[in-house]
Amino acid sequence: MKKNTHPGNILFIMCDQLRFDYLSCYGHPILQTPNIDKLAKRGVRFTHAYCAAPICAPSRASFYSGRYSSSHGVLGNDDNARLDEKMIADYLQPLGYRSAVVGKTHVHKDLKEISALGLDPDSPWCRASQTGGFEPYESHEGLFPDPVLAINPGQGYDTYLKSLGYDPDNPWDKNANSSVDPDGNLHSGWLLRSSKYPAAINEEHSETAFTTRRAMDFIRGCGSQPWCLHLSYIKPHWPVIAPAPYHEMYQQLEIPSAVRNEREYQNPHPVYQAFMEQEYSVSYSRDEVRDTVVPAYMGLIRQIDDHLGRLFDFMRAQGLDQNTLVVFTADHGDYLGDHWLGEKDLFHDVSAKVPLIIADPRADADTTRGQTCSKLVEAVDILPSFIEFAGGLPCRERLEGQSLLPLIHGQANVFQREYAVSEIDYADRGPRALLNLEPYQCRATMVSDHHWKYIHHHTFAAQLFDLENDPDELIDLGQDTRYAGICQEMQEYLFEWRGDLKRRCGLDYGFMAGQGPERDEEWGIIIGRW
Amino acid sequence: MKKNTHPGNILFIMCDQLRFDYLSCYGHPILQTPNIDKLAKRGVRFTHAYCAAPICAPSRASFYSGRYSSSHGVLGNDDNARLDEKMIADYLQPLGYRSAVVGKTHVHKDLKEISALGLDPDSPWCRASQTGGFEPYESHEGLFPDPVLAINPGQGYDTYLKSLGYDPDNPWDKNANSSVDPDGNLHSGWLLRSSKYPAAINEEHSETAFTTRRAMDFIRGCGSQPWCLHLSYIKPHWPVIAPAPYHEMYQQLEIPSAVRNEREYQNPHPVYQAFMEQEYSVSYSRDEVRDTVVPAYMGLIRQIDDHLGRLFDFMRAQGLDQNTLVVFTADHGDYLGDHWLGEKDLFHDVSAKVPLIIADPRADADTTRGQTCSKLVEAVDILPSFIEFAGGLPCRERLEGQSLLPLIHGQANVFQREYAVSEIDYADRGPRALLNLEPYQCRATMVSDHHWKYIHHHTFAAQLFDLENDPDELIDLGQDTRYAGICQEMQEYLFEWRGDLKRRCGLDYGFMAGQGPERDEEWGIIIGRW
Repeated sequence: MKKNTHPGNILFIMCDQLRFDYLSCYGHPILQTPNIDKLAKRGVRFTHAYCAAPICAPSRASFYSGRYSSSHGVLGNDDNARLDEKMIADYLQPLGYRSAVVGKTHVHKDLKEISALGLDPDSPWCRASQTGGFEPYESHEGLFPDPVLAINPGQGYDTYLKSLGYDPDNPWDKNANSSVDPDGNLHSGWLLRSSKYPAAINEEHSETAFTTRRAMDFIRGCGSQPWCLHLSYIKPHWPVIAPAPYHEMYQQLEIPSAVRNEREYQNPHPVYQAFMEQEYSVSYSRDEVRDTVVPAYMGLIRQIDDHLGRLFDFMRAQGLDQNTLVVFTADHGDYLGDHWLGEKDLFHDVSAKVPLIIADPRADADTTRGQTCSKLVEAVDILPSFIEFAGGLPCRERLEGQSLLPLIHGQANVFQREYAVSEIDYADRGPRALLNLEPYQCRATMVSDHHWKYIHHHTFAAQLFDLENDPDELIDLGQDTRYAGICQEMQEYLFEWRGDLKRRCGLDYGFMAGQGPERDEEWGIIIGRW
Repeated sequence: MKKNTHPGNILFIMCDQLRFDYLSCYGHPILQTPNIDKLAKRGVRFTHAYCAAPICAPSRASFYSGRYSSSHGVLGNDDNARLDEKMIADYLQPLGYRSAVVGKTHVHKDLKEISALGLDPDSPWCRASQTGGFEPYESHEGLFPDPVLAINPGQGYDTYLKSLGYDPDNPWDKNANSSVDPDGNLHSGWLLRSSKYPAAINEEHSETAFTTRRAMDFIRGCGSQPWCLHLSYIKPHWPVIAPAPYHEMYQQLEIPSAVRNEREYQNPHPVYQAFMEQEYSVSYSRDEVRDTVVPAYMGLIRQIDDHLGRLFDFMRAQGLDQNTLVVFTADHGDYLGDHWLGEKDLFHDVSAKVPLIIADPRADADTTRGQTCSKLVEAVDILPSFIEFAGGLPCRERLEGQSLLPLIHGQANVFQREYAVSEIDYADRGPRALLNLEPYQCRATMVSDHHWKYIHHHTFAAQLFDLENDPDELIDLGQDTRYAGICQEMQEYLFEWRGDLKRRCGLDYGFMAGQGPERDEEWGIIIGRW
């Protein structure tokens, strides 16, 4: 792209805890998501996209930094990213972009450490350091039970709801994330049984509606400056409370059955077993729970789709569909009772795989519109794609992913990846206590190609799934000696991956590549000459 | 140790490029180092201590941070340490210590990035960020050819020499590191042949003498506050120019022969071969060069020993020998022509092993005084030892080493390590161009126990040495299929080591250990309850 032309905007849409297969374009049998499907027709839909960590903060930090958890340092939901981690906004700012978030990031650096250094916590850099590096145009972290609100008051959505006359103390909790039964009784969204009733809020005031409107506000205000907007919906993440009419849209329909079998209860891997014993897993293993919650989960997704339809119309009306790269994805999935599990954390596809659609408006992408791509792609590839789109140079000393644009421009051979990797550290999750582990023992890493998925555990034996012959991942072959050779090969991949992490990130790659005895001599340093 | 009592001072002595076996207590046949030997009699001498990287900056950053190169991010001599890396001074400051350096650190954070954040580059934190986290009481990086001096003028030693009437432009180069022949001709220290003449400076004004005196100045000025002094001699690092009488002290004696054989030339490992082809290796492979340079190298060591004698006398006179932990070590070794190599970089013991003596003045250490310890210990163990000595708590989320104090207090069973690891990245060294590698391909990692030394190369086959049967490391068994099983076992160690690195360092370990559903519920967050 030539200088002085507008490089194009970037709309980076993320849903929280959206399973890849709960979209009609990904084959959901009931749920219809026509606007996301249309986006897929305008772009490329990736069938094998993996998050870097099937849990919020670590996953997002990888999307934003283009690096794996092991590099950016966020392995748990409360972790601070390393102070010198660069995020999307840091890379796009020198290219002329304004990068902002509307919605959730869940990625922050250590504010205490930042303050101890003497930096002004109200400076733009410090503020952005608490929202994934993005300008917090409308930060909404979407998790405000009373104790959290008490220390984190007055974010925009809270103020907005109060101005409308909702609950004066905590309208996020009492309205947006509580439901109301036909008799007018309020039910807390913190209980799954409450999902059957509509949210105690008008749809137009719900988080999804608010977030979409604020995205439009941001875009309207940008003028001619190139922008990157991270439109980051908190839903369908729990509390799973959908406003009318979305709460009941799927209640009468038969939802997909849970994917699980009894064999998974026989001799399960200890880590898997500990997750099965968590309250959320026990709950989601019950059909009554699924039948109540999954329709509301689907309703929340449909609501997002409707709002994306409005947003895409808005952009079209302004001609922005012609110069905006649109990415749609999720931070991770949700078990929803599959494999006798709730939540995410582990590496079955329903948890670790994410939907990913990329629509590039430029003519270069015309040949692939509407196609699917089955290459193994990862969250860490998103930022390199943005940098390439924005006309920047790859930051080889830091970025651990690869640009996906060649795949969208019909140059699939340029993109090479043998395996995808995803990591967790469940030190902050319930299973640690059950397993009696020290925090550092709670690491697990998935390495997967199209045939095999291998999961290495810090303290326990490895797991192995044959994705080709057991696509539902019901049979753990990790202890089957016939597969010892496969396990060995997969561990070799992981060994290589660990060794390839960009640990030497404090020096520009170009400078690095120019080092050597010649440069030493320019500085007068001559080593070992007789 | 009880509160409100003086926890004791720490004197952390480092020599640059001092081979472990060039001390009489380590068995050198000619060189006498009586003062260092006496220190060994007061403490424990470690026979199997490894640096984390056989090159200056990466090695030192591990000594100072208690973490491996892969964690602190310094893999080359120009690299910046990651911005949030904590160093010795950061850990000791809350324990009441003043930590300062006299001499070299070669460890810095990115000053451009620090300035871009808006921090005052003259603030104490920023200044210390350029000297390994230490207060730069007398920073002397010891490498000032004219082009370097031009951008880094007026350090204390330069000012000191100029005040004495030495060369008005660059007395470091023209006096301290040039030699003068009997006819009064000056010879540049950048040529090895110049080592045969004495330095063009009085001994009392040389770097070693100056550094020692400044250490005494620091100690004198400390009063009753506990201190940690990093006394960091630039010598015997090149330029190998010794002041009279040290330049000729060993010239008439037979220096140890180079350890090498012709077999090492047959089919050498490609990385090894590329290092053999470097100018310094070619030079040091010549006996004429060794016979000229090694005596001067030995003289420089003897000079340091003499000055340490003065320093120890000074401390004794002040009673400081009674309450000061003394550590003596080096950042790495020097091939000096062994294995047809000069310099360091690779992993033969003469390069990767370091001398390490620790003398603890307290009664707890009485049972081990004068003993040797053959446990595998590492540079990353030094900081944990300091923290324990100073009465602090281990920082388990960051520190990758273990305190050595149990070994000194006769509790050897507390200390467990199966293997030692050392890393290099030779992207900034000559061999990269010879091997036609990208910078990220220049990684190699050593993992060694008492029997085997395995070296994993990023782009090339592995190497293996049998330390038990080939202690001189002359026979590379890496390609001998009979040892494939050993190689596999050693690689398993390395795999484990890579997985154990403290990547999740942005959260206090205690906080981490208290996470889980109970804490979530305290914050009003209930996940998956029906």
